[in-house]
Amino acid sequence: MNFCSNCGNSKLEYIIPEGDQKQRFVCNECDTIHYQNPRVIAGCLPIYDGKILLGKRAIEPRYGYWNLPAGFLENGETPNDGALRELYEETHAKGEAKHLHTVFSLPNYNQVYLIYLVALSSDQFSKVTSESIDVELFEIKDIPWDAIAFESTTFAIKKYIENPTNKEANIGHLIKEQLH
Amino acid sequence: MNFCSNCGNSKLEYIIPEGDQKQRFVCNECDTIHYQNPRVIAGCLPIYDGKILLGKRAIEPRYGYWNLPAGFLENGETPNDGALRELYEETHAKGEAKHLHTVFSLPNYNQVYLIYLVALSSDQFSKVTSESIDVELFEIKDIPWDAIAFESTTFAIKKYIENPTNKEANIGHLIKEQLH
Repeated sequence: MNFCSNCGNSKLEYIIPEGDQKQRFVCNECDTIHYQNPRVIAGCLPIYDGKILLGKRAIEPRYGYWNLPAGFLENGETPNDGALRELYEETHAKGEAKHLHTVFSLPNYNQVYLIYLVALSSDQFSKVTSESIDVELFEIKDIPWDAIAFESTTFAIKKYIENPTNKEANIGHLIKEQLH
Repeated sequence: MNFCSNCGNSKLEYIIPEGDQKQRFVCNECDTIHYQNPRVIAGCLPIYDGKILLGKRAIEPRYGYWNLPAGFLENGETPNDGALRELYEETHAKGEAKHLHTVFSLPNYNQVYLIYLVALSSDQFSKVTSESIDVELFEIKDIPWDAIAFESTTFAIKKYIENPTNKEANIGHLIKEQLH
């Protein structure tokens, strides 16, 4: 953050505001405190007949790696709706969110994944979409473990395999050594 | 948003960027796309001996109303840690997060509550903290329903009373008619 988004000047200080415990960007001109917070990634664990639907990413990061359908939650939407929107955008599949399956947080990246177990309405989906270069319904034995895009996906699929009927949300996180 | 936080000029347009489906603030000078996303509120449903710990808010909004300990998740922390931090800040109580109890979203306010069921370590807490003008451990029959601060708290407590041992996350949302 280089400039104040409220008044446009560059007199930003990175300080702990009065009554706070954490450093924030504060504008010395108009006194606006610019809070920065983690973002939610809404995602699906889409199941059909015991198989799991994965998409091969058409964008960086991790282009060409397999992933559960997921993306940033938008203002104005519920996580449940966001998850089903991402499912459709990435695979053109539809389904119903049954319960929250996984909360996976990446504090170093300021991200929180909320992944719903989704019962697919059918085995209909598109092999290619604008967000996926390939889409496939995998038998558990065929999951491409070495080509999964993100830890959140590996975590959620492993938890599903361990206990497919569990309805308690699985809680996980990945803390990497801070670069600075 | 009035000015670009990257380059400081005021040539912001609220448009749908190429390849996107949603309006964003885009800087005409440096091409930065300013994404805006919902924030996570990490909270606790703190239980001791069947009783629920609530704090009476010392700040607006809803000053003087009772609430579950909760607050904005910070960059660099997991929701679980954020929930226990808020518990301590608001009540000086400590405990252990057992499972995710509630996901409650407010799409019109761009907020997602993640509320953990927390087993308090003891019945020790402070009656007054910098964030609460009163703290109390309520028997279920004494919950002050008419003086609860937010719908998320009412929802979580009602779900707990309906089924205290349920471990599946309760999913709720409140959609108010948009003002504009």
